[in-house]
Amino acid sequence: MDAPSERTRVKRMNKRAAYNSGTVHGILDAMPICNVGYVFDGAPYVTPTLQWREGDHVYWHGSSASRMLEACEQAQVCLTVSIIDGFVMARSAYNHSCNYRSVMVLGTAHKLTDAAEKEASLKLFTEGLWPGRWDMLRQMTQKELKATTVLKMSLDEASAKVRDGAPGDDEADYALPIWAGVIPVRQQVLAPVDDPRLIPGLSPPQHITDFRFG
Amino acid sequence: MDAPSERTRVKRMNKRAAYNSGTVHGILDAMPICNVGYVFDGAPYVTPTLQWREGDHVYWHGSSASRMLEACEQAQVCLTVSIIDGFVMARSAYNHSCNYRSVMVLGTAHKLTDAAEKEASLKLFTEGLWPGRWDMLRQMTQKELKATTVLKMSLDEASAKVRDGAPGDDEADYALPIWAGVIPVRQQVLAPVDDPRLIPGLSPPQHITDFRFG
Repeated sequence: MDAPSERTRVKRMNKRAAYNSGTVHGILDAMPICNVGYVFDGAPYVTPTLQWREGDHVYWHGSSASRMLEACEQAQVCLTVSIIDGFVMARSAYNHSCNYRSVMVLGTAHKLTDAAEKEASLKLFTEGLWPGRWDMLRQMTQKELKATTVLKMSLDEASAKVRDGAPGDDEADYALPIWAGVIPVRQQVLAPVDDPRLIPGLSPPQHITDFRFG
Repeated sequence: MDAPSERTRVKRMNKRAAYNSGTVHGILDAMPICNVGYVFDGAPYVTPTLQWREGDHVYWHGSSASRMLEACEQAQVCLTVSIIDGFVMARSAYNHSCNYRSVMVLGTAHKLTDAAEKEASLKLFTEGLWPGRWDMLRQMTQKELKATTVLKMSLDEASAKVRDGAPGDDEADYALPIWAGVIPVRQQVLAPVDDPRLIPGLSPPQHITDFRFG
């Protein structure tokens, strides 16, 4: 993954590109929300879903009846993760920008066919976000496992693109009396809300109250 | 847009689907960040960018040198917007979910060719996010306008999908002593950060300090 393929080489603003696995892994691990692009009947589709990483592969899952997962299997896929860090407010419209961290993974998706491997991967997904939760839950049934498809894709063709910092204005524009800077943004996690049918007296465990992402 | 086409009809969990323009417009207007899916050399690509809406069309823009914009023009595109509202923590792994508001727009993208129309649309984009900013900025030059491509796509084939509320657990699982509920999340906007080269004494205008999204 450290050298880009022709397809993954970032074409525009390549000073913002990174191909090292540390950067790619860091972004994937920070943001479970992704957008999966696939082709169906010749047309592109983009479906938001959650992803997780194990080593040099990215995974996502859903109902075995999902058209998205069916269209992705053994097919070319683009999985994109992006984290917006700020709006970059310049002195001209043209130089406005965003600060962000993004990863694009190109590849072919494959279904996990072994039930034990599938369950282990779903456990890793859950534990990655909420450590300790899996073992607290009612166990997964064989029927549920069968109704769930997990797809896996190599990170061999992954690239990252990152922008941060202040606006880049035209030199002459810095003299103008226009406010410029960055509006930082981030994902905020609010206090958990009990299920109305929660057994009285149960408090949210630490994996809920400590949860952060982005 | 009020009746779905065969292509836009939501296939999975269609109790969560909406095709009315009010819902679709509301989600597009709340979240400028989108993911654009297109096909290049037969493979799907997903690029995050910003979108804005004017009436029954969605717009996005970028450098005239952008491969993404070139591949989208006169071609089939899927533009997806999603807002994550919460993580839905159930009593079984299988019933975990997310609360979200999402829109998928399918269609063919067209370039704005008239320079005045292009500039008017960029102004609307800027003013939609930061009212009053456009007229404060250094004016856009003809060269900058030429270097910017704006694409437009009809909302005729748009659909929304929304989930909110508590987990939906298996009836028997409600008796289990497992914490369940929702972890609400939202986009947080932090205090603006001055450009290090800002003219001393300039304060961020109200369109900066009032900015919210999502």
